[in-house]
Amino acid sequence: MTTNVPLSGQRLWDSLMEMARIGATPKGGCNRQTLTDLDSEGRHLLRRWAEAAGCTLRVDRVGNMMLTRPGRDPSRKPVAFGSHLDTQPTGGKFDGVLGVLAGLEILRAVHEAGIETEAPLMLVNFTNEEGARFSPPMMGSGAAMGLFTEAEVLAKQDSEGRTFGAELARIGWQGEADPAILRDIAAFIELHIEQGRLLEDAGCAIGVVTHALAQNWLEVTVEGEEAHGGSPMAGRRDAMMAAAPLIAAIEQIALATRTAEGEPGRATVGRLSVYPDSRNIAPSRVWFSVDTRHHDPALLARMAEAIRARAAGVAASRGVRIAVADFWHSPLTPFDATLVGRVRDAARRLGYRHMDMPTGIGHDAVYVARRVPTAMIFCPCHGGLSHNEAESITPEWAEAGMRVLADAVLATAGIAKG
Amino acid sequence: MTTNVPLSGQRLWDSLMEMARIGATPKGGCNRQTLTDLDSEGRHLLRRWAEAAGCTLRVDRVGNMMLTRPGRDPSRKPVAFGSHLDTQPTGGKFDGVLGVLAGLEILRAVHEAGIETEAPLMLVNFTNEEGARFSPPMMGSGAAMGLFTEAEVLAKQDSEGRTFGAELARIGWQGEADPAILRDIAAFIELHIEQGRLLEDAGCAIGVVTHALAQNWLEVTVEGEEAHGGSPMAGRRDAMMAAAPLIAAIEQIALATRTAEGEPGRATVGRLSVYPDSRNIAPSRVWFSVDTRHHDPALLARMAEAIRARAAGVAASRGVRIAVADFWHSPLTPFDATLVGRVRDAARRLGYRHMDMPTGIGHDAVYVARRVPTAMIFCPCHGGLSHNEAESITPEWAEAGMRVLADAVLATAGIAKG
Repeated sequence: MTTNVPLSGQRLWDSLMEMARIGATPKGGCNRQTLTDLDSEGRHLLRRWAEAAGCTLRVDRVGNMMLTRPGRDPSRKPVAFGSHLDTQPTGGKFDGVLGVLAGLEILRAVHEAGIETEAPLMLVNFTNEEGARFSPPMMGSGAAMGLFTEAEVLAKQDSEGRTFGAELARIGWQGEADPAILRDIAAFIELHIEQGRLLEDAGCAIGVVTHALAQNWLEVTVEGEEAHGGSPMAGRRDAMMAAAPLIAAIEQIALATRTAEGEPGRATVGRLSVYPDSRNIAPSRVWFSVDTRHHDPALLARMAEAIRARAAGVAASRGVRIAVADFWHSPLTPFDATLVGRVRDAARRLGYRHMDMPTGIGHDAVYVARRVPTAMIFCPCHGGLSHNEAESITPEWAEAGMRVLADAVLATAGIAKG
Repeated sequence: MTTNVPLSGQRLWDSLMEMARIGATPKGGCNRQTLTDLDSEGRHLLRRWAEAAGCTLRVDRVGNMMLTRPGRDPSRKPVAFGSHLDTQPTGGKFDGVLGVLAGLEILRAVHEAGIETEAPLMLVNFTNEEGARFSPPMMGSGAAMGLFTEAEVLAKQDSEGRTFGAELARIGWQGEADPAILRDIAAFIELHIEQGRLLEDAGCAIGVVTHALAQNWLEVTVEGEEAHGGSPMAGRRDAMMAAAPLIAAIEQIALATRTAEGEPGRATVGRLSVYPDSRNIAPSRVWFSVDTRHHDPALLARMAEAIRARAAGVAASRGVRIAVADFWHSPLTPFDATLVGRVRDAARRLGYRHMDMPTGIGHDAVYVARRVPTAMIFCPCHGGLSHNEAESITPEWAEAGMRVLADAVLATAGIAKG
């Protein structure tokens, strides 16, 4: 399918390195958080590159960028691909960026060779996939698919009280298009690094992603009573001393909740705050976030039940109150069987070692899959490291992912006979 | 001794309530943190009150206030008493303030009755006892006793980077006196709320404080590796999942390290921070403070050893690094036997139920005791609650403490025969 398309792994790699200079960190990572000046700079660079490859830009009201190259058949909907350019505060060079710039390379190669596709091609850069600055994550794709209203997205605040809407306007990337136009596409295919070590350990260059694990994010608030650090421990209702064994129990619950094949759940306590935050005061309040995931939605629900039961037990035995609140949920999401088959076929045809696998991580493609036929391609990353400045991939892996993406995209869009 | 001194429990209570309006919180507590505008306002009020009772103010270079009433014998050193007016961010109305305003009531009554003492009387308000805004605590008394240099105190920064020296100058309370003049006093007696529930539970109005428990403050830093919340847990080096069982173990170590009489240690984890602080990233770094105390200095040292051993075990089993650093130490400090006896005699003479006890909590008196004969008097507080907006005492308890303080102070200073 892509034999005559002059795709360049070197040009892709060079573009990745050039983009990585915007927000580069001393440790070799990237801090290009959403709706910052650096995010704007990255967006301008992408725009210049895509326009030079014959694309037209549209931006919607939540900042999603759509770079479209027309097809031969005006009746066909665009075949879309892409990912996100925003990063975590201590992010790497490839998470999200690989999918966007591999898509750019396809547009460049097609443009250079003067190839005409039947359907239009559309490269998408979704706003705020990471959710680090404005929570929850995947806001741009979520708004496009109607999972969040525009109003709620625009009203979200960062930790300093600035709103998403004000920051989007400030950096000059609030467009006029309705985010819902992204539902009116024929297909979406996202290439992304795995953010795990299964592919590397198995010696595979390509992961054919079949579905997304169910996710359940909770918020736990432990409320006890302040006590001076010199007071006897017997009478205390110390929120920290209740939170610590509960967090330890959450890890044990994730490890113990296994499928018949022995696959455990996943649990992360990534944020925690203490009140009143003084060295010699036993805290009256500890708040923490819990991110749980599982292959099996029933077992995910069982994890939440087990966490609530343990919280109730700790609360009763220590005389504290513990509230476990639902914060965000994502169901098990299957990808489109035809598109998944096309990705698998492309990997086989191109001779890359590949394996089917789920994603344990949320991606824009997971939201898009709720409304549009969607597939995902994983590329290995060293040691499974991601959301980390040391995140790394090889140029060969990047190229393999890009070639499989191109093959699946062009098979879906169709190449017009000259 | 104090039969002819017109001490007024009502006037003391009224003054406590008036001072509590400066920094009053909606929950009935007080937020009058050191070197804030509110601290300055409280100091001005104390100054007006004490000057109206015939006292002369001196302020030293770290802001300690000395309000002195001359004695008959110019060769005698002052007999000092007092405490601190600063509070925790969510503090109560009595912690520190009771000792200062009970001292004020003694000066008022002596002045009103035209009584002349042999030795001068000196009321002291120490700067930054709480250590909430500028750490460590008891900086004013520590500087006066030579435990900290003036330069290091003045250079301390709050969480927003403002220095102690700049804030002291800004609020107008940096004096010219050498803090060391506070070492040149005959005695120091501090009345303070117990901040525990032993007195209330025993039905005692007076605690005769015999010594201060040894304290050891540590800082623990756990360093692992960031991992995405969707990555499998098997390969993680999650700093939070290492910190949680270590904190739980610290509590167990405190409870298990007991004297022959069964008295356990005390451990508080009052501050904790997480990096990078994102819901879907397993943290690469968790930092927390540990405040440990014990009746027996040897057992306190054993607690620190046990914490280090456990940290090493957790680090080894989880592939993380854990550093346990010493932050601050205070040895077991006995109070002056003669002065302690005078406090006990006063309680007996005045007919108050009393008991001997140690303090588990640092106080200005604990630092002063390193250089000057010192004693402490405890007053009960409801439910042992302190460093808490709900901190409360009865007017009767306040009066009892004030009368014992007056008796011990005047017995030490001597009343001139008319």
